[in-house]
Amino acid sequence: MTRQELIHQIRIKKSFLSIGLDTDIKKIPTHLLEDEDPILSFNKAIIDATKQYCVAYKINTAFYEANGPKGWQSMLDTLKLIPENILTIADAKRGDIGNTSEMYAHAFFDQMNFDAITLAPYMGRDSIAPFFKFKNKWGIVLALTSNKGSADYEQQKIGDEFLFEKVIKTTCKIGDENNLMFVVGATKAEDLLLIRKHAAKHFLLVPGIGAQGGNLDEVVQFGMNEDVGLLINSSRNIIYASNEKDFADVAAIEAKKIAKQMNSYL
Amino acid sequence: MTRQELIHQIRIKKSFLSIGLDTDIKKIPTHLLEDEDPILSFNKAIIDATKQYCVAYKINTAFYEANGPKGWQSMLDTLKLIPENILTIADAKRGDIGNTSEMYAHAFFDQMNFDAITLAPYMGRDSIAPFFKFKNKWGIVLALTSNKGSADYEQQKIGDEFLFEKVIKTTCKIGDENNLMFVVGATKAEDLLLIRKHAAKHFLLVPGIGAQGGNLDEVVQFGMNEDVGLLINSSRNIIYASNEKDFADVAAIEAKKIAKQMNSYL
Repeated sequence: MTRQELIHQIRIKKSFLSIGLDTDIKKIPTHLLEDEDPILSFNKAIIDATKQYCVAYKINTAFYEANGPKGWQSMLDTLKLIPENILTIADAKRGDIGNTSEMYAHAFFDQMNFDAITLAPYMGRDSIAPFFKFKNKWGIVLALTSNKGSADYEQQKIGDEFLFEKVIKTTCKIGDENNLMFVVGATKAEDLLLIRKHAAKHFLLVPGIGAQGGNLDEVVQFGMNEDVGLLINSSRNIIYASNEKDFADVAAIEAKKIAKQMNSYL
Repeated sequence: MTRQELIHQIRIKKSFLSIGLDTDIKKIPTHLLEDEDPILSFNKAIIDATKQYCVAYKINTAFYEANGPKGWQSMLDTLKLIPENILTIADAKRGDIGNTSEMYAHAFFDQMNFDAITLAPYMGRDSIAPFFKFKNKWGIVLALTSNKGSADYEQQKIGDEFLFEKVIKTTCKIGDENNLMFVVGATKAEDLLLIRKHAAKHFLLVPGIGAQGGNLDEVVQFGMNEDVGLLINSSRNIIYASNEKDFADVAAIEAKKIAKQMNSYL
């Protein structure tokens, strides 16, 4: 998916919501457990009920790997259920030496046909560069995350800048706003302003409105740019809003609620 | 596998060789392509021929993910072929927020029964902590890698120490020499001495003797400790030493050659 297509979808749907399919066999409604592939049944119901309110689905690969080859198949089958005009993100946080990252890029972009993948930058720019050689595909690089451990390294100073700033500046040398986004868990004004200083035009993937304690108002106020430039993800708050037979309907209500709030900012 | 078992195996085999199963369908001998699972046939032959010369097999998950659910199955089937007294390492470089890392730990340790997994530390200590809650399992954390991009962040100074030093010191708060190793691609004396200053007793996983240009002499001179404390990995130089029908025999010759050199240091 191109940047223009993504922006177009945001304008049409009046939403910049990404829904995280962190589908856990232990958390889905028990009546689905009799289905051949309960994970797929759950995802299908969630996608059908929520696709009008979101512009991206983020698939957390850990939850599928935990089910082995069958889980990997559920992931592939889930991808096929997502309409083409919705961005598909593999939340996989890959990053390795060159020839290995090439294999990962091949796996996620060619073989599985994801539009985007999240990347871990620790090993430096050559460890994620292979992901930026694909047309109309996106690398979404960890910059500043919202977990407590972000203080350990991300928020440490190298010279007069934070590590996360250095990551943004360095990664902007191998990608641009057409194929590069950043994961930004920040909701603090000063952090968002700093990130926008280095990545004015880029989309930011902001996880964790809700479960991880993010605040939509602040993110929009300090993070939005002229092309919106934000994808706000919510996972558990939407997909596990109900654990009963009505789970998809309740998920739709939650997604609609967030989309409505987003509409008010556009 | 416990630390004592690993040291015992090194002493018995007089080898601290890890063999990397970076098995690429495009690089294996063509006569295997008619088999039901060529990747598995290749790995079986390599393992049978080399298992007496190594104490670990490192499975690079990227190469298996690139084949989808079938590749994931090949990885599981390969694991079953590895003798119990040989350490199995998932070279997967995972690391994510807490509940996701818990899922990864469950996938690799409980479900697949790997002994060890490589971890990417960018998001901080809580992003890898769940991997250190398993008995007799290992987290192998990226510290200083051998690729060019290690200069981007790993070798940057935070205060008066390098980022890779900070990673080692910080990670030593959540694991110890019984469940924590570090990936160290360094062969320079000053780097190895610095790493041993912070991780005197830990095992170091050193990738890339050969293909990535490492030098065994220097690594041993400056990296070995009283319990050996080194796992030296070689992948392509061993498994792709021949592309003919004799590939497994030639791989064994290459592995034996390295093991013999290792023996001379013990």
